[in-house]
Amino acid sequence: MKGRVAVVGAGLVGTLLSIFLTRRGFRVDVYERRADLRGRDLPPGRSINLTLCTRGLRALERAGVRAEVEELAVPCYGRVMHDEAGATTFQPYGNRREAIHSVSRNDLNRRLIDLAESRHGVRFHFEEACVGIDLDRPALELRGSGSGPTRTVEADVVVGADGAFSAVRGHLQRTDRFDYSQHYVEQAYKELPLPAGEDGGWQLEGHALHIWPRGRYMLIGFPNLDGSFTLALHLPFEGDPSFESVRTETDLERLFRRAFPDALPRIPDLAERFFAAPTTSMVTIRCAPWSHRGRVALVGDAAHAVVPSYGQGANCGFEDCAILDACLDAAGDDWARALAELERLRKPDADAIADLSLRHFRELQDLVADERFLLRKAVERRVNELFPDRFVPLYNLVSFTGLSYVEALEIEEEQQDLVDRILALEGVEEGIADGAANGAIEELVESARLPRLQEQVTSSAS
Amino acid sequence: MKGRVAVVGAGLVGTLLSIFLTRRGFRVDVYERRADLRGRDLPPGRSINLTLCTRGLRALERAGVRAEVEELAVPCYGRVMHDEAGATTFQPYGNRREAIHSVSRNDLNRRLIDLAESRHGVRFHFEEACVGIDLDRPALELRGSGSGPTRTVEADVVVGADGAFSAVRGHLQRTDRFDYSQHYVEQAYKELPLPAGEDGGWQLEGHALHIWPRGRYMLIGFPNLDGSFTLALHLPFEGDPSFESVRTETDLERLFRRAFPDALPRIPDLAERFFAAPTTSMVTIRCAPWSHRGRVALVGDAAHAVVPSYGQGANCGFEDCAILDACLDAAGDDWARALAELERLRKPDADAIADLSLRHFRELQDLVADERFLLRKAVERRVNELFPDRFVPLYNLVSFTGLSYVEALEIEEEQQDLVDRILALEGVEEGIADGAANGAIEELVESARLPRLQEQVTSSAS
Repeated sequence: MKGRVAVVGAGLVGTLLSIFLTRRGFRVDVYERRADLRGRDLPPGRSINLTLCTRGLRALERAGVRAEVEELAVPCYGRVMHDEAGATTFQPYGNRREAIHSVSRNDLNRRLIDLAESRHGVRFHFEEACVGIDLDRPALELRGSGSGPTRTVEADVVVGADGAFSAVRGHLQRTDRFDYSQHYVEQAYKELPLPAGEDGGWQLEGHALHIWPRGRYMLIGFPNLDGSFTLALHLPFEGDPSFESVRTETDLERLFRRAFPDALPRIPDLAERFFAAPTTSMVTIRCAPWSHRGRVALVGDAAHAVVPSYGQGANCGFEDCAILDACLDAAGDDWARALAELERLRKPDADAIADLSLRHFRELQDLVADERFLLRKAVERRVNELFPDRFVPLYNLVSFTGLSYVEALEIEEEQQDLVDRILALEGVEEGIADGAANGAIEELVESARLPRLQEQVTSSAS
Repeated sequence: MKGRVAVVGAGLVGTLLSIFLTRRGFRVDVYERRADLRGRDLPPGRSINLTLCTRGLRALERAGVRAEVEELAVPCYGRVMHDEAGATTFQPYGNRREAIHSVSRNDLNRRLIDLAESRHGVRFHFEEACVGIDLDRPALELRGSGSGPTRTVEADVVVGADGAFSAVRGHLQRTDRFDYSQHYVEQAYKELPLPAGEDGGWQLEGHALHIWPRGRYMLIGFPNLDGSFTLALHLPFEGDPSFESVRTETDLERLFRRAFPDALPRIPDLAERFFAAPTTSMVTIRCAPWSHRGRVALVGDAAHAVVPSYGQGANCGFEDCAILDACLDAAGDDWARALAELERLRKPDADAIADLSLRHFRELQDLVADERFLLRKAVERRVNELFPDRFVPLYNLVSFTGLSYVEALEIEEEQQDLVDRILALEGVEEGIADGAANGAIEELVESARLPRLQEQVTSSAS
C-alpha cells in the first residue's frame, strides 16, 4: 500500500480518479455528500446529459473502462439544425464518421462507481459532507446526513473532485495568495424530456445532436439509448424571451410555436415540466494554485469549471485524471512533484477551454444573425473539404484529437489567418458557393504551410 | 426609530457607516470579531498607516467628524524621492499646497469608534464573529471568543463592512449568479518602524511621503504625529531581491546598504523587526451584486478591495458611506432602492480604481527604468505648470478632487492623447527641458479643448 488518498466527491471525475489511484496501489476512500445515486430514480434537473469526445474516451481507455462506458452512449455523427419553419439540415462532424457520444450523466456516474467499487475495491462513503479541512495535516472533517457530531479522517493526500462549488476549494480560497474567480453568464437552461415514439424508437434522428439556434436563446437535444431525447432550453434571465418573460403556459406555448414548432408536439406536459424544472445557471471558475503543499489538490470542475457550450467539462475533467496518472508515473508517485507538473501542464489548457467555451457561447448566439460569421464558417467547411488533413476546424481539433487545448487554439489561429486571406479574395462568396475559388484557395493553403494533422485526428466511432 | 441595522465589522468603513446611519435615525449595532482596539497596544503588522485625500476627508465632513480626524493626521505636501546614493528630490503634489494626510490606521479607527459610541450611541459588540447568515430573514449567527454556542440576531438590514476577507461576502458568494474574483499581486510588504530622532522630531522631512523606488521593489515611508515614520518595504515573493532571497541578517543588510543606504542607519533593530514582521500580501477583490434582496449589502473592501499603491482603499470606502447616505436621502430611506442606486453609481468606480491601482503598481515598478515613461511624466509636469487649471495629472484628479474615478480616468484619457501629440513634436526632449517647446505645447493644448477643472481641484490642506 503506497499511502491513503481521500477523494472528496463521487461525481464523474472523483470516481474515475479513484480508479486510476487504486490501480497505482493507493488506498482510496471517496466521500460524497449526496446519497448513493445507484438504485434510485433521481429527480430530473441538472446536467442530465453530456457528450464524450475523443479526449474523454482516451482517458477512460487509460483507466481500462472505455468499453463499459461506451455501451451506455449513443454515438452522434453530426448536428441536425432545425429552422423556425421546422426544416432540418444535417451537418456531419467530419468526413470520417467522427462522432461524439451522448450519455446520461447519472448512468455514466453509476457505471463508474460500480466499476470502481467492484473491480478496484474503492471505498465509497455516501452522505458524508466535507465541512472542514485541516490543510496542513491533511485531514477532512466530515458530517453525516443527520445533525450528529462530525468525524475527522486523515489521509496522506486529499483530492477535491467536488465540482464547481467545491468545499475543498472553499477552504483553499481562504489561504494566502490563492487566486480565484467565478463568473456567470446571462443565460441559464432548463431540461425537458422528449420521450420515445410509440414504437419505442427516437422521434428525431437518433445519431445526432439537435440544435434549434435562435440567437439569444436556443434548444438543444441529446439522444438517449431508450429512444428518448433530453432537451435543454437555453434562455437569458432577462429580456424577451427569457425566464423572466415566460411566466404562463400561454407564454411558453407561444414561444415554442414561434421558435421550435417541430419540437412542440413531441413534448407532452411541456408546461408542467418547464415550470417544475430547476433553472440551472452557468458559471466559469478559475483558480490557482490547484494544490497546497503537495498534499491537497483540486481536479476537474473544482479547479476549472467551464460553461457547457463546447461540451468539454467532463472530457476535460477525465483528461485531468489521465494526465495526473501520467504525472504520478513520471514522478514515481511523488505527489508534490506530480501535482506541480499537472498544474504546469494543465492550467494553461484549463484557461484556454474556459475562454473557448465562453467564446463559443457568444458565437452560438450570433451564429444565425451575422452574415460575415456564416461566410467564415462556409469558407472553413470548404477548405476542410479540400484539405481534410491540413485544415481541421477548431471544433474537430478539440473534439476529435488529443491535442492540448492550447495547441488546438494555436493551430486555429494559423488557420484563421488563412481564412482571412481567403475572405480577401475577390468574389469569394460566389467562388465558395460554385467552387470557382477552389484554385485560389489551394494556392493560399499551399503557401500557408499548415501542419499535417492526419495522425492526430482520429475517429472516435468504433 | 426607522429600523435596525446590523453592521458586520468595526473597521474604518463599518464605523463611519454606523455614524451616518445613526444620524439618519437607524438603530445600529456593530459586530466585530476582534477585540476592542482601544486601550491596548496592538502588535505592529498589517496596514499601520494610510493616507486620506480629498474624497475621504469630504466623506468624514459629511459625517461631521472631519476635524476630529484631521487632528490625528500629518499633512504631506509632496513626495521625497530617495536615490541609491541617498540623494533626495522633493516633488510637490501641486502648486497650491495640495496635501494628502498620513494617519495611523489604528488611531483613526479608535477615534471613529469613540465618536460613534459617545456622540451617536452606536452599540459595538467586540469579539463577536459572524459565523453564519440567514440572508433572506436577514439574521446573523454570531460566535463569541469562547467555544460556546452561537447566538442569532435579526435586523432589518445587514451591512458587511468586514473587509477584504468578508464573512458576509463569503455567504453571498454561495448564492446563485454571484460574480466574484480575488487576485494577488506577486509582491508583498513588511512594515518597519523608523523612530523619532533624539530630539523627538522627524529624522526625515516630516510633511512628505518618502519613496525609495527600485523597480521590482521599493521602500515607502509615512510620517506619524509622534516624530516617527512607518516604513513599508515592498518586495516580490520570488526572485532577487525577494522575501525568498532575503533569508539572513547579512542578506538584509546587504540589500539596505545597496538600495536604501540613507534609511539603514535610521532603523534600529532592523533585522529583528524584519524577521518578526508579518508579510502582508496584496489582493484585488471584485464582486457583484453588492446586495441581496435589498436587505443585505457590502461596502468598502468587502465589496471592492484594491492594492494599496494609489492610497485609495480607505478613501474609497469612506466615499461609499457618504454616497450610500446620499442614496438613502434620495430614496427616502428605502434600502432596496438606495442599495441598487449605490451599486449602479459605484460599481464602475470600484472597477476603475481597482484597475488604476494595479496599473500604478506596475508603473511604480517601471518608473525608474523606462526612459519613455519618465519623459511622459516630464511632459505632464510641464503642461500642468503651464496650464494648472486645464491639465491636472491623474494622481491629482484622484487625490484632490471629488470627481468619480471613472470621470477622472476619462479626463486622463483626453490628456494622454494630448501628451501623445506633444511627444510627437520634433526635439521634444530638449524642448521640454529648456522651455523651447512651450509655444508648440500651448498651441496643442489650445486645440485640445480640455475641460476647465479649477473649481473641482481643491486643496485639502486647511
